[in-house]
Amino acid sequence: MGKSLTRREEDYSKWYNELVVKADLAENSAVRGCMTIKPYGYAIWEKIQAELDSKFKDTGHENAYFPLFVPKSLFEAEEKNAEGFAKECAVVTHYRLQSDPDRPGKLRVDPEAKLDEELVVRPTSEAVIWNTFKGWIQSYRDLPLKINQWANVVRWEMRTRLFLRTTEFLWQEGHTAHATKTEAVEEAELINTLYANFVEKFMAIPVIQGIKSESEKFAGAEETYCIEALMQDGKALQAGTSHFLGENFAKAFNVKFTSDQGKQEYVWATSWGVSTRLMGALVMTHSDDNGLVLPPNLAPIQVVIVPIFKNEEQLELVSEKANLIANDLKSKGVRVKFDNRTTHKPGWKFAEYELKGIPLRIAIGPKDLEKGTVELARRDTLSKTFENQEGLTVVIENLLKDIQHDLFIKAEAFRDDHITKVDTFEEFKDVLNSKGGFLFAHWDGTSETEEKIKGLTKATIRCIPLEQTKETGKCVFSGKESKQRVLFAKAY
Amino acid sequence: MGKSLTRREEDYSKWYNELVVKADLAENSAVRGCMTIKPYGYAIWEKIQAELDSKFKDTGHENAYFPLFVPKSLFEAEEKNAEGFAKECAVVTHYRLQSDPDRPGKLRVDPEAKLDEELVVRPTSEAVIWNTFKGWIQSYRDLPLKINQWANVVRWEMRTRLFLRTTEFLWQEGHTAHATKTEAVEEAELINTLYANFVEKFMAIPVIQGIKSESEKFAGAEETYCIEALMQDGKALQAGTSHFLGENFAKAFNVKFTSDQGKQEYVWATSWGVSTRLMGALVMTHSDDNGLVLPPNLAPIQVVIVPIFKNEEQLELVSEKANLIANDLKSKGVRVKFDNRTTHKPGWKFAEYELKGIPLRIAIGPKDLEKGTVELARRDTLSKTFENQEGLTVVIENLLKDIQHDLFIKAEAFRDDHITKVDTFEEFKDVLNSKGGFLFAHWDGTSETEEKIKGLTKATIRCIPLEQTKETGKCVFSGKESKQRVLFAKAY
Repeated sequence: MGKSLTRREEDYSKWYNELVVKADLAENSAVRGCMTIKPYGYAIWEKIQAELDSKFKDTGHENAYFPLFVPKSLFEAEEKNAEGFAKECAVVTHYRLQSDPDRPGKLRVDPEAKLDEELVVRPTSEAVIWNTFKGWIQSYRDLPLKINQWANVVRWEMRTRLFLRTTEFLWQEGHTAHATKTEAVEEAELINTLYANFVEKFMAIPVIQGIKSESEKFAGAEETYCIEALMQDGKALQAGTSHFLGENFAKAFNVKFTSDQGKQEYVWATSWGVSTRLMGALVMTHSDDNGLVLPPNLAPIQVVIVPIFKNEEQLELVSEKANLIANDLKSKGVRVKFDNRTTHKPGWKFAEYELKGIPLRIAIGPKDLEKGTVELARRDTLSKTFENQEGLTVVIENLLKDIQHDLFIKAEAFRDDHITKVDTFEEFKDVLNSKGGFLFAHWDGTSETEEKIKGLTKATIRCIPLEQTKETGKCVFSGKESKQRVLFAKAY
Repeated sequence: MGKSLTRREEDYSKWYNELVVKADLAENSAVRGCMTIKPYGYAIWEKIQAELDSKFKDTGHENAYFPLFVPKSLFEAEEKNAEGFAKECAVVTHYRLQSDPDRPGKLRVDPEAKLDEELVVRPTSEAVIWNTFKGWIQSYRDLPLKINQWANVVRWEMRTRLFLRTTEFLWQEGHTAHATKTEAVEEAELINTLYANFVEKFMAIPVIQGIKSESEKFAGAEETYCIEALMQDGKALQAGTSHFLGENFAKAFNVKFTSDQGKQEYVWATSWGVSTRLMGALVMTHSDDNGLVLPPNLAPIQVVIVPIFKNEEQLELVSEKANLIANDLKSKGVRVKFDNRTTHKPGWKFAEYELKGIPLRIAIGPKDLEKGTVELARRDTLSKTFENQEGLTVVIENLLKDIQHDLFIKAEAFRDDHITKVDTFEEFKDVLNSKGGFLFAHWDGTSETEEKIKGLTKATIRCIPLEQTKETGKCVFSGKESKQRVLFAKAY
């Protein structure tokens, strides 16, 4: 079937790239660095969207939509943001193509149709949104303003990989405005926790909540909260960020409000986002050499039924029972597919659904009809059992819950096994090269040390964990005083 | 409150523009021709999306996502499509901004970062999708391929109006591939009917299904099906289109499949879309001089409860009952809001919710507590009744259904009253200028006649209705033989 995968231990990166394409999640497009998200991959993204969207709404956020284009001058208003984002971007300079007089059938830019001011395709929307918020906020009664947007953004990346780093990607970006600093900080923290809960409970990916060091934080933020996950190859992946922006954007765009005391004050801001990058984290946390492994919550198909038959008559008998099973599962809200195609053999189907990560597979043939059983296979453990047809739906409902739980436990055990306390730089380098994962080490708090460690090892500070026992010590690199340990790792 | 609207008969166009902004649906942005869709407007759009999306899925379509950018060369592949779409578009020519050495704090395009090939921001995605389909389709087993995409698109419009014509807009675009012509034509028709049912049943907007004349059809289509609605000012609005594309795109992008007979054949295509333009149709079909009127199916809030009180104690008593009413409504799935703000007077709230088009308003005060009643006001008819608190939920559930139904009936009566059979060009012009609406007239079938009528009257052929008694006659303009009547109108 030409679908066999490179094994992970052979070449993890190649395994990932092949799996994303062969499992029909995404593929590269005709535009350098831009991907096509295929129907199966998009169906998983829709589940991520739906769950997050309901969580945002439950916490008082509303969706809106802001323009794709940001006039160059809006970027100039907030210097750090411009430094961080407006440089590597897609720039629209013209608004017309015309037939090329020198090359029949070809198009060229119409030199007459040059824009007075170039438009940047949004790499993020703080500038355009704060320029809009100025018109929406006058009084403390207009606050808090809690807005989210589902959108595409473009960052001109030199090295791209499907889902992990693409020129265009899909994301949600939250932008909120508050009357007080305390409230804005609380919002940034609330969202970071919301992200952590979502990623852990829904995607079964364990994460560490923390804050970013000065050099890793968002351009224009006072504080960046983040959730960090660990992939199977020992590299970290930033799965989401939530920023406390202080008064930076309010000052850049002159957004003030009349307080309940009648005073004019600047508004406090947050912004936060997760993206299609989560799809990469999903693949690299759970999947194996046979293909995708999907947590039941995210699986577009949770159970597939494959009929075993030698002739038309057998297929008919088996189908009758299979349809009863499928309908009973559907009535309980289980997403089930009965694959009764005669164009493909059962063995081909087994491999295909393994590749696609369907959590449970039911095989049913003439012998099962006699015995009143089915063969039930778990994708995550690749284990098989025979189950009675009677009461099967309850067994499956419970198994789906077990799989969701077990995937998290397994990933958490792996992650915990890959957090290593190190106290010397030798140890730091040894563990990083032999085992990878997070290195929990003392750091003197300076960007210089961070930069030097990165230069020597490629490891960066992934975060300063929010939950840790405070412990002073000596910086693993400089030997200077350290107030706390931080998590270093090589990262995606 | 500064929210009073221009009256429709005074200036319909001004009424529309004001209403869209004042009812918090959308506003203009810093980018010429691009709008910001505000939370209230976006909540309505989300309801449109959710309903359509489930209808697409029920009919076997899957969502996917294709790149925002289309390399210029892909447009060159399909000549008519390029003629129609690739001309007035946003063109990305560079991928970097840099600090301007001559103007501190300002940015400029980096002349070194010029793209080898310009990228067009998609005005529609046929080119990029058919270039992708080439890799997805080999055999008849891969067909039909039925894909939909929710996306933003950009067309560089010179004259823009919120929702009706904006440089960037949101839409869905379906793209399907089929083994036979018959199947592709059936798909185009199925979707047009799906659109008609959705717009009529969910948005309460009556439409006429038809096909476009040669000069009005989609560039690159063999046949364009459409649904046409009539606005209150007598102008038509194209609410959705569904195209049978023949083999045009398959040939342009060389997409062939091996048939079940083992032959290599070109694939047959359709594409179809509706956009945020539907929001404009919604406003202009139902709303009045007091503001929006929303069909209950689309209303983010279906019922608002406004407490009437003179002091804290009264508010408390009224709130207790109001919360009971609200909770009972919620338990039946009714979207209800209890507005217990003390910062605004009841009169202000009444006007506000009228402006926002909330279908039903409950007012409840101390006297109602005594009598066991509430005051119930319908937004569409502006009528008020007193209802018993006992059994109120059932009354409201039925009223919401009635309102949904009545809005359609009212709009249908208006539309039917504005379809006029005309048999001379004098009559044509008279009716067009005095009453507007659709003119049902004989046409000789030529683009020349169509063009001349448009030049003289600004009326165009909106569609050749699918359902009509065939009737021959003489063209209203040229006097030549005509095979059928068609619908002319001035249009948005």
